[in-house]
Amino acid sequence: MNPVPGTACDLVLFGAMGDLAGKKLFPALYQLHRAGLLAPETRILALARRDHTEAEAVAHIGEQLEQHLEHGDEGSSASREGFLRRISYRQLDFASADGYRVLDDWREQGAAAAAGTVIVYYATPPGLYPTITGHLAGLRCCDSKTRIVVEKPIGQDLASARELNDQLADVFHEDQIYRIDHYLGKETVQNLIALRFANNLFASQWDQNHISHVEITVAESVGINGRWSYFDSAGQMRDMVQSHLLQLLCLLAMDPPSDLSSDSIRDEKVKVLKALRPMTPDLVNTHLVRGQYTAGTSEGRPVPGYLEEDGANPDSHTETFVALKVEIENWRWAGVPFYIRTGKRLPEKRSEVIIHFKPAPHYIFDPDQKHLANNKLIIRLQPDEGMALQILTKDQGLSRGMRLRQGPLDLTFAETFDHDRIPDAYERLLLEVIKGNQYLFVRRDEVEYAWQWVDQLLANCHECDAHPKRYAAGTWGPVASIAMITRDSRSWYEDA
Amino acid sequence: MNPVPGTACDLVLFGAMGDLAGKKLFPALYQLHRAGLLAPETRILALARRDHTEAEAVAHIGEQLEQHLEHGDEGSSASREGFLRRISYRQLDFASADGYRVLDDWREQGAAAAAGTVIVYYATPPGLYPTITGHLAGLRCCDSKTRIVVEKPIGQDLASARELNDQLADVFHEDQIYRIDHYLGKETVQNLIALRFANNLFASQWDQNHISHVEITVAESVGINGRWSYFDSAGQMRDMVQSHLLQLLCLLAMDPPSDLSSDSIRDEKVKVLKALRPMTPDLVNTHLVRGQYTAGTSEGRPVPGYLEEDGANPDSHTETFVALKVEIENWRWAGVPFYIRTGKRLPEKRSEVIIHFKPAPHYIFDPDQKHLANNKLIIRLQPDEGMALQILTKDQGLSRGMRLRQGPLDLTFAETFDHDRIPDAYERLLLEVIKGNQYLFVRRDEVEYAWQWVDQLLANCHECDAHPKRYAAGTWGPVASIAMITRDSRSWYEDA
Repeated sequence: MNPVPGTACDLVLFGAMGDLAGKKLFPALYQLHRAGLLAPETRILALARRDHTEAEAVAHIGEQLEQHLEHGDEGSSASREGFLRRISYRQLDFASADGYRVLDDWREQGAAAAAGTVIVYYATPPGLYPTITGHLAGLRCCDSKTRIVVEKPIGQDLASARELNDQLADVFHEDQIYRIDHYLGKETVQNLIALRFANNLFASQWDQNHISHVEITVAESVGINGRWSYFDSAGQMRDMVQSHLLQLLCLLAMDPPSDLSSDSIRDEKVKVLKALRPMTPDLVNTHLVRGQYTAGTSEGRPVPGYLEEDGANPDSHTETFVALKVEIENWRWAGVPFYIRTGKRLPEKRSEVIIHFKPAPHYIFDPDQKHLANNKLIIRLQPDEGMALQILTKDQGLSRGMRLRQGPLDLTFAETFDHDRIPDAYERLLLEVIKGNQYLFVRRDEVEYAWQWVDQLLANCHECDAHPKRYAAGTWGPVASIAMITRDSRSWYEDA
Repeated sequence: MNPVPGTACDLVLFGAMGDLAGKKLFPALYQLHRAGLLAPETRILALARRDHTEAEAVAHIGEQLEQHLEHGDEGSSASREGFLRRISYRQLDFASADGYRVLDDWREQGAAAAAGTVIVYYATPPGLYPTITGHLAGLRCCDSKTRIVVEKPIGQDLASARELNDQLADVFHEDQIYRIDHYLGKETVQNLIALRFANNLFASQWDQNHISHVEITVAESVGINGRWSYFDSAGQMRDMVQSHLLQLLCLLAMDPPSDLSSDSIRDEKVKVLKALRPMTPDLVNTHLVRGQYTAGTSEGRPVPGYLEEDGANPDSHTETFVALKVEIENWRWAGVPFYIRTGKRLPEKRSEVIIHFKPAPHYIFDPDQKHLANNKLIIRLQPDEGMALQILTKDQGLSRGMRLRQGPLDLTFAETFDHDRIPDAYERLLLEVIKGNQYLFVRRDEVEYAWQWVDQLLANCHECDAHPKRYAAGTWGPVASIAMITRDSRSWYEDA
């Protein structure tokens, strides 16, 4: 299939010299360019506070690009040069209203001007969002068709999220606002929609009648990577659970939408968030485990504990690990716990979802194999995006009679779809912004219901003022996380 | 797991110099020996009409063994010699009662005598079964523990099957009689039991609510291979449908047995046979296609038609191809057709079962992909025993948005269970005879209900006296077979 170039649009990028732009946004835009998915007229305005000439800035972006493109994805040098020709650079003090006229000047230059939508990407610290929004309001180039892209975090709690959303809403309508949770751009995460709703084999069993429990693991092997203060003010609950893990939970648990429109999907996700069992003080004691890593070993080398990292406050009570037993109070999921865990300095970088199907009502094979008899669907988000279905077959060893054997039906996307590269999440997300499709972006009410649940949990967590449980770097979190699931006679899934 | 040697027993093999013994039975017994699954005391008495010395006969069996063992399965020469030492040879005129005393003489020789059960294998033409049975009746070595193994065909119709079963029943109890359908010894066929009843993902959907239709294809690329007269007196319906295909159908369609005992399983199979919709004259017109191959191409070389084979009667109306639409009149399968087809000189040797699951009740993806939206479970019996589940995933091409893609979750047994060889059907079957487990053998009522259904079909088939529809060797049978399934807006599965 030939690519259909996106609608013509102009892109304005605040924070164009920052990490996110260099590592993710320009490489992603370049891939869209290379794949013929950017309209020929589409221009990019790079804005940053640094005083560069345009030539210097574009050269810098070109260097970043070479550095961050994956091997095999570089394309030709002509292609990269063609991409860089789309870019203009303007130095801008984001705080000063006066400077913003450069946007209108740039927009009104050239033949393609005003042809398409303006997309403004806030690749800046969230503290700047209100300022930028305020200054955009007065520009000719910003109108009811302009699209605004913001990165998480959207607030640090419900109150601050509401304030930020209100500020955006003062100037832009909700259908102009694209809140990124980059997990939603991952192919495997989007694949949850295809898997769940195109396969009746799964769809017809996706409920409490057929599923006993669900696990979601988002494990990182890295520690804090030089951003200790930023992380410490949030912690794993606010940084990861409120966003990525609850988003995954929504996609896994939502009722089938009646169509694939952005609001049909997001309406269903919100229903899940509203149905989350509130974390009362009693529940927090049994359904939450917080952890903080101590010195240990990561990928074969010794690493410091969280409190010994550069810049650490040695009295910090911030958690670097969370395990939760989440319940969803609706007809589909009553009685089906979702065990979720996420942490830093775990043994490996691994994100996966495991759907545990209930066993058959009657078991007729050897009694000592009864524990094998539940099917599991394993959805791997990273590494090696793919999926596997654990089924039981006959062990065909001649001496073994009718013995069972657990074997995976396996699909590793990179191997199977070998002619396609797996697009980076930002490629997909930017393409959907250009198309004006919001289904992969987080709606205001999603953000706020997620905060409401997390806020209540934290408010009811008396232990959250105390020191989290310790776990050595390179282990799967505190023992209490294992105890939490063991109390239900279950265990965290381990790949055999 | 260490092998547990089978119970001590003595094996008596009628027709020990024949094709079946040389190609299948001795190689299978040798594999049991090599795997430590024959008790040390177990002896084998080879009986045939040829006047050999024992040394000559055993040497001949040794040569056959070398010739028919698969590469990699030969074991050591010490192992083969150890096996051959178990074998005694006696010349015997099967028709003459007097000679049968050699069985008692042999049985009563040596230390292990009378320790274990005597297993008598009739590897002879079925015409000899009554004679052998009659002469066994008077022997000391044959008692209520003796096991009799007979090969198909059990009769050519219900009347002759009953007669043969009556003759066996005069001397032996049903629980002493092991009727072989070698399809039941195939690992993949036995695996149907594990797949269906150990995996609730499948078990809970194995009915008319979730399955739209089922295909069973048993395709042979060979023609008649020098046994024209034998085949012509039976035809594909009697030779293949009455036995292998109806057995497969039973295992696919049966209700869950309450345990794995032989009679629990066979009771459920019989229920299926009793529920087969009778083939009335009307039904035969629309639900049956008979074919006979004409000259064509098989595996790249020109081959003669059925009527031009060596020894052919050019007026034969015998079918070499059958396609049937079979219906099962019970709660589980009402409205779910089983399309079955089997034939000679088809394009390839392929046996497979395809379970077509119903699509989800509501479809939300691109309208032009709606035809993809049903899951299929493909169970391959040969070649490459294994299974695959066709599921839909998101096509991850960047330009393609939420497009679906059909991908298999695949499990090829030989690759997956790479340390195990897949045992030949006869190894499994002989092992189960030794263990005294009848679940892989066909009970008398199974044979007879299958004949009853086939007999009625043939009696109601006015066209069966006419010439079958022609198809060129190397094609998938007559066009009418395609038309039969097309009338239901379906098509025979083709691997992409």
